[in-house]
Amino acid sequence: MADQDRFVVDFRTEPARYRHWRLRIDGRIATLAMDVREDGGLRPGYELKLNSYDLGVDIELADAVQRLRFEHPEVAAVVVTSAKERVFCAGANIRMLGQSSHGWKVNFCKFTNETRNAIEEATGESRQTYLTLVNGPCAGGGYELALATDYIIMADDGATAVALPELPLLGVLPGTGGLTRLVDKRHVRRDRADFFCTVEEGIKGQRAVEWGLVDEVVPRSRLEAAARQRAAELAARSDRPADARGVRLLPVERAVEGDRIRYRHVVCEIDRARRVAAITVSGPAAAPPTDVVAIHALGCEFWPLGLARELDDLILHLRTNEEEIGLWVVRTAGRADRVSAYDRLLAAHREDWLVREIRLFLRRTLKRLDVSSRSLFALIEPGSCFTGTLLELALAADRAYMLDGTRPEDVHPPAAVRLSELNFGAYCMPNGLTRLESRFLGQPGRVDELRARIGEDLDARAADKAGLVTFTPDDIDWEDEVRIAMEERLAFSPDALTGMEASLRFGGPETLESKIFGRLSAWQNWIFQRPNAVGDKGALRVYGTGRRAEFDRRRV
Amino acid sequence: MADQDRFVVDFRTEPARYRHWRLRIDGRIATLAMDVREDGGLRPGYELKLNSYDLGVDIELADAVQRLRFEHPEVAAVVVTSAKERVFCAGANIRMLGQSSHGWKVNFCKFTNETRNAIEEATGESRQTYLTLVNGPCAGGGYELALATDYIIMADDGATAVALPELPLLGVLPGTGGLTRLVDKRHVRRDRADFFCTVEEGIKGQRAVEWGLVDEVVPRSRLEAAARQRAAELAARSDRPADARGVRLLPVERAVEGDRIRYRHVVCEIDRARRVAAITVSGPAAAPPTDVVAIHALGCEFWPLGLARELDDLILHLRTNEEEIGLWVVRTAGRADRVSAYDRLLAAHREDWLVREIRLFLRRTLKRLDVSSRSLFALIEPGSCFTGTLLELALAADRAYMLDGTRPEDVHPPAAVRLSELNFGAYCMPNGLTRLESRFLGQPGRVDELRARIGEDLDARAADKAGLVTFTPDDIDWEDEVRIAMEERLAFSPDALTGMEASLRFGGPETLESKIFGRLSAWQNWIFQRPNAVGDKGALRVYGTGRRAEFDRRRV
Repeated sequence: MADQDRFVVDFRTEPARYRHWRLRIDGRIATLAMDVREDGGLRPGYELKLNSYDLGVDIELADAVQRLRFEHPEVAAVVVTSAKERVFCAGANIRMLGQSSHGWKVNFCKFTNETRNAIEEATGESRQTYLTLVNGPCAGGGYELALATDYIIMADDGATAVALPELPLLGVLPGTGGLTRLVDKRHVRRDRADFFCTVEEGIKGQRAVEWGLVDEVVPRSRLEAAARQRAAELAARSDRPADARGVRLLPVERAVEGDRIRYRHVVCEIDRARRVAAITVSGPAAAPPTDVVAIHALGCEFWPLGLARELDDLILHLRTNEEEIGLWVVRTAGRADRVSAYDRLLAAHREDWLVREIRLFLRRTLKRLDVSSRSLFALIEPGSCFTGTLLELALAADRAYMLDGTRPEDVHPPAAVRLSELNFGAYCMPNGLTRLESRFLGQPGRVDELRARIGEDLDARAADKAGLVTFTPDDIDWEDEVRIAMEERLAFSPDALTGMEASLRFGGPETLESKIFGRLSAWQNWIFQRPNAVGDKGALRVYGTGRRAEFDRRRV
Repeated sequence: MADQDRFVVDFRTEPARYRHWRLRIDGRIATLAMDVREDGGLRPGYELKLNSYDLGVDIELADAVQRLRFEHPEVAAVVVTSAKERVFCAGANIRMLGQSSHGWKVNFCKFTNETRNAIEEATGESRQTYLTLVNGPCAGGGYELALATDYIIMADDGATAVALPELPLLGVLPGTGGLTRLVDKRHVRRDRADFFCTVEEGIKGQRAVEWGLVDEVVPRSRLEAAARQRAAELAARSDRPADARGVRLLPVERAVEGDRIRYRHVVCEIDRARRVAAITVSGPAAAPPTDVVAIHALGCEFWPLGLARELDDLILHLRTNEEEIGLWVVRTAGRADRVSAYDRLLAAHREDWLVREIRLFLRRTLKRLDVSSRSLFALIEPGSCFTGTLLELALAADRAYMLDGTRPEDVHPPAAVRLSELNFGAYCMPNGLTRLESRFLGQPGRVDELRARIGEDLDARAADKAGLVTFTPDDIDWEDEVRIAMEERLAFSPDALTGMEASLRFGGPETLESKIFGRLSAWQNWIFQRPNAVGDKGALRVYGTGRRAEFDRRRV
């Protein structure tokens, strides 16, 4: 088990390499059909029967969702369905879960949750509306995937049902947002949701419509036509340009040299002895293009898009493949004026479909940081460019240390941080607030004050006074203070840090998204750790063996 | 460990029996001084040094908070402080935690959370404002107690600090709302909260004020005077009547006869073989008094107050002493018109201080149901009186089964449910919504429609149509359907049920309270289950042994 987890996962893929999904585009409408290869598991030891999925299947789904946004501006509706004859999707593969370590399970759920959130964001913000055509039994994670789309059509054939059988069958929760979306998105009445989540066979036909579990049931003969019609209606409401050309997402280039991972704009050095990943993000190498035509021409060469792709890949890599690296330390390098110029461009052309996508992608990537179970420190030093979009990295950090003045070895002037318009709305966190709003909960006036200072260089003292950084040691204290803070952090219980960070990072309101990552995931993680699920006689362990689970009956 | 947990806890106490608190009343101001007896632990095996506490200490605190509300209408401010020379409070006793079962720890945290929520409710709703005089080192649960009060004065003496050392010292979270209240109540900046929660020694003096951890620091010599003055200011803003007479809370009478627990208005029969507690709540035996003077004269003989006290005691008893009884089945018996009449009285006199307290107490008791980790079914049968306040029991249930018609053995006419004004605002859940609002999330119009039907008798068909009950089997199906539902429920994983119920019961918005019971408690429970805390080398287990904790360094 532990050995299997050392398997290195690569999150980069492309349609030509898909093994589990078929993507078809027909004008304004795309169809994403699940067709999981039974022998295509990411790791050995299980077969992906009945369109059940593992992380590998979901990596392809995430890639498809991403590419539909960038490569297909003309697509305004996406039909998710199954290419199998007799099943829609049986959910996450249970044998895979049963043989996975606790950390693997939790990380798998986190990624699948992010993918489903991306589907909802594509619908809501990119105006590429997802709907589901449930053309066969749809259980567990399969139904949770459907729940992430905005419209669910189900076959009315006596055999097809939606179900969340995790509790009766496996003694765990539907771990990918199912419970939250039932009551908070679809507003299924709580007592009906309670019943639904306890019947293995699920609910079919008209009752599923009445209870709000699906939107429509249709005889098999009219299924395809109904989906086409509904997709066309949803597509008609979209503002996506039918005649624009997409931007090709070329493979993200990454060089792994020992413990160094190098991209074009991002470098990460892993210090295994200390369990630290030192991440340096480079600002733009040149001034931005002058108009939106040039942005489109640059495509993924455009610095903000390239940056988002690289940072996203690095976060996923570190989360999945470097579990013991508990502290990520982020630095930036480059010129503040250039970052400012790029941010002005992203602000000025926010109505352009591609610029909108780039901003949303940066937002998603920053959200990944918020929900990563790693401590995050920002170090703000001479030569850095914590400006606008890049300042978000410091605001996302659990702490930001900013050097007051310079050290003898510094060739640059003292560090400054700088706000841009994008700090005031472009990058909301999972709780729906900007990082500045989250930082000054209960003092909205402070955010307004900062808005008046966009573009201003704030040195350590000014940044401290403005509340943007945590500590501002000078040359004499810097090295010791930062080193001790890092050493102490890494000496603490990794689990307690995860719980603390998940609590402190999300003050203020809650959203569907923050409830999924907070409340629901925390309960699921607890259950994933309990003998009743993962002990020798736990429900998840004995599934498929013919033996019955034995439970400690004490309610906790 | 398991044996110790079979120890039966009695939640009933009174000031004459307090061993750990000193309650002093001086006109409008009460002082509640913590003075924990080292040898006064609820169970053997630990000493309550340094004003550290266990469940027994908190039971007395909860009782004091309750009695101040009912027995002392004249008290408008309460100063929480320590009667010890050199310490305010060291928090929950660590040895006690270290030797407790998982279930005991979780239940202990739940009760202490409820007590702190009651302190906040007393401040906000009963206008009995709590403030804290931190007259010595104040750590962990001690500071969390202070955080539950609305004003914190701390000694500025170089030794006194506030601290949340759980993470660095014990590898767990502050489990009694500390993290949530730091960021969501006191709006401590998240990066400062992060730092604060990692420094064992805490923060003292002016910095504690600047960061928002306390409201004021004062030299020791002026401490008492400062507290008196601030308490007087807060008391002056209260609407509590200075000249009213309180209501004496006489001991709750309870007879335990084998597996039957009998109160005056509540009876509970425990079926150990099936793991079911059958709870029957009786409606009023007679018509209500006609005016508020008579309510005061009746005191705790007044049916709604007696009911709240008995139900509250039963919930706490079952939670703590009957862990394996996984399903609570609630019935009512009595006349709907009498419950309606009592509800009208509670609605008409809501401005009266005592009626306000009774309504708030019923609200707190119903909230205890919401956060109890037990499945809750309501059975609505002929002869029942699920009306108004008692209808909340059915609305709090995970499911409500209502018999359509009668069975041969029934002597009463078919059951009906009935709404009262109190279903529309008196009894909000931890999420801040009424149970009806929570039930019809996203359909506020349905709540308005129901308001027009106050007082109407709704039979099974009408109740079903109105969305108030889950299933309405008739005579032929009733017995099997209810029996099978109960058997199935009790066959499921108890842990998965806890996670599911905690997710489905709280749709909609989140509050400080729901975040504490949802997000924070779930993370804490997860940590409480992890080897890094409770394994042989876990931080909580090795505390005080001189050995260092050894951690699995993988971040999850």
